[in-house]
Amino acid sequence: MAVGLFEPDKIQPVAGIKLASVSAGIKKNDRDDLVVFVIDKSAACAATFTQNAFCAAPVTLAKKHLSHYSSEQTVRALLINSGNANAGTGETGKQNALQSCAWLAEKLQCSVEQVLPFSTGVIGEQLPMPVLQAGIDKVVGNLSEDNWLSAAKGIMTTDTIAKAVSKTIKIDSKVITISGMAKGSGMICPNMATMLSFITTDANIEASFLQQCLSDAVDDSFNSITIDGDTSTNDACVLIATAKANNTQLNRKSVGARIFTDALNGVCQRLAQAIVRDAEGATKFVTIAVSQARSKAEAKNVAYTIAHSPLVKTALFASDPNWGRILAAVGRAGIEQLDISGVNIFLDDVCIVRSGGVDANYSEEKGQAVMNKEEIIIVVELNRGHDSAIIWTSDLSYDYVRINAEYRT
Amino acid sequence: MAVGLFEPDKIQPVAGIKLASVSAGIKKNDRDDLVVFVIDKSAACAATFTQNAFCAAPVTLAKKHLSHYSSEQTVRALLINSGNANAGTGETGKQNALQSCAWLAEKLQCSVEQVLPFSTGVIGEQLPMPVLQAGIDKVVGNLSEDNWLSAAKGIMTTDTIAKAVSKTIKIDSKVITISGMAKGSGMICPNMATMLSFITTDANIEASFLQQCLSDAVDDSFNSITIDGDTSTNDACVLIATAKANNTQLNRKSVGARIFTDALNGVCQRLAQAIVRDAEGATKFVTIAVSQARSKAEAKNVAYTIAHSPLVKTALFASDPNWGRILAAVGRAGIEQLDISGVNIFLDDVCIVRSGGVDANYSEEKGQAVMNKEEIIIVVELNRGHDSAIIWTSDLSYDYVRINAEYRT
Repeated sequence: MAVGLFEPDKIQPVAGIKLASVSAGIKKNDRDDLVVFVIDKSAACAATFTQNAFCAAPVTLAKKHLSHYSSEQTVRALLINSGNANAGTGETGKQNALQSCAWLAEKLQCSVEQVLPFSTGVIGEQLPMPVLQAGIDKVVGNLSEDNWLSAAKGIMTTDTIAKAVSKTIKIDSKVITISGMAKGSGMICPNMATMLSFITTDANIEASFLQQCLSDAVDDSFNSITIDGDTSTNDACVLIATAKANNTQLNRKSVGARIFTDALNGVCQRLAQAIVRDAEGATKFVTIAVSQARSKAEAKNVAYTIAHSPLVKTALFASDPNWGRILAAVGRAGIEQLDISGVNIFLDDVCIVRSGGVDANYSEEKGQAVMNKEEIIIVVELNRGHDSAIIWTSDLSYDYVRINAEYRT
Repeated sequence: MAVGLFEPDKIQPVAGIKLASVSAGIKKNDRDDLVVFVIDKSAACAATFTQNAFCAAPVTLAKKHLSHYSSEQTVRALLINSGNANAGTGETGKQNALQSCAWLAEKLQCSVEQVLPFSTGVIGEQLPMPVLQAGIDKVVGNLSEDNWLSAAKGIMTTDTIAKAVSKTIKIDSKVITISGMAKGSGMICPNMATMLSFITTDANIEASFLQQCLSDAVDDSFNSITIDGDTSTNDACVLIATAKANNTQLNRKSVGARIFTDALNGVCQRLAQAIVRDAEGATKFVTIAVSQARSKAEAKNVAYTIAHSPLVKTALFASDPNWGRILAAVGRAGIEQLDISGVNIFLDDVCIVRSGGVDANYSEEKGQAVMNKEEIIIVVELNRGHDSAIIWTSDLSYDYVRINAEYRT
């Protein structure tokens, strides 16, 4: 059961983007497992990828294809399969990724480099190529501007709810739409995890600025969530701008740049939070805000140490205000010369630790009242600087174990 | 159910050490929760402690007392309570720890500094002082050289089996005994976790060499295990040498030094492994051996990244040879410029990954056969250096979640 997350309403189509989803037969059940985005000519494209050294064949190939892009040749299609990650599959895996792109490129009459491949699912099994070829034949017949919800379902693996968000803004009196989707609910960690996100806009944006917008937005969204601390081999986030809104081209100096980046950040944060809300087995949605740190990295480190602690996570699952576990996690975060007598910790607005010890006004009842909620904010003040960080995480439940123990059965 | 771990047989008494255990009423059930070691005069004493910045009151006080020791004044007693960690308890907690030592010192007619205090259990509650005082009165009436097993039970919290080991060696034709006990089964991580270990020997050893022996032994035992990656506020390991065996005093140059250190390392490793075997909810005992690294730290880092991965741990629980999760963990360990095409991974003697890809001879059946076992060795060859590390860990089961969700209820 996802925490405070509901099936998305209608997602706004984005001019210049058509998409489709089919059940090709890669997944063992009959759910959709093959999604294609087809993009009109001359779109700008930005992307971020996993930092896992064992990155999957499609990640390697997508990066290579992106490196070929210029004003003459840019992205024309995204080819996404779920159910199989094509990771740990060696030379055969690379050839299969390339072959899949070639099949789609032939259908669309573009070059193979103009197709970017993405895979998510089980690691270490080869893609079922005949099944995939038949699926590609079929999916291109279903293209429409309006297929966002079925496509968001088609990229899911252990997700229980499709994740998609739209936002509309006005720049230069032109209406601009940003619509995006994401998948992911486990193996989620800083620096992109088992997640994929595809975001499109009809805005006209300079390509280098587009990449900057995406990198900044990812830092405070997909790179600020954790479920289980595992970084996967396949993560990617792609942002495509079709320029169909006919606004004056945006760059970092444009008056409208801030309007666009705010909207993009909002879309990315809502998608990232949706992943945490749908975390495997999650019963809580937890915001961890660490402030008064010497650097943003230090603040993020403390936040992640709390978020990764299985003891904190099981206490959250049990709605147990066992704040000692939060305190112990702060203590082991490895902050140099941490003066514990300056540390304050809050559950929502209830102060549990003041100046390193139990707050005089704290009572178990107050802590329990916060812990009983589905959405909880843990605030840590380090009292040693002016930097802060916010991350989002979930609890650790029986269902997390069940889902991950039974994943392949 | 502990994995391959049984109640210890008779533990050899150590000349110069008497101990006792009682139920003082600190734990909510009627189990033993107060243990005292009383040590004859002139013993040497070494210790290692948690690196958690929020260390508990007894840890701070024990370190302070140790700093007063000299050839004239050394340890005379260990005072250990389970059921309450006396951590996060501020100034009151410190006074309570000191008061407890004073009560025992009065009974034993030694100085308060000669008593070292240790606490383990729930964080953030004050010690029940009247109950503790009555317990101290009672426990000193029960002292005997032969109380090892009941004392090992008295220091337990979520442990399911008492952990104690004896070893006898000969140096200079003198028989030397090493007997030790440990507790701990969760919040276990590198650098001492929610564990306590008390080891005694009748050997005559130079004090500075004794500390070196303990630090080295702890590095390859208690600092080479992890259950859930959490480092507690209370961990300590103490080694006491009573000199009653009348051997020529051992120092780092003695011929017999190696015999002693080998025996001590063996005792520490068996106690550390016992903690992992009794890990909260454990159904597997897993050895992770990483070799061909550029440094021991690099090897340990890779080993711990695998050991801390909830996805690897749930796959182990499910006996699922989902080796892709091991590969993904190696990939995200943050090893600089890791050439994945040199990496080999084995489950016991079954090669699963050869040169970065699935081994040609690997089959699901072979992987399954290893995974079905209770004790599994994961071997990772990095092919970039000559250093290696071995650590021990457990799996992540429903019972881990249950135990930690219900801890205070």
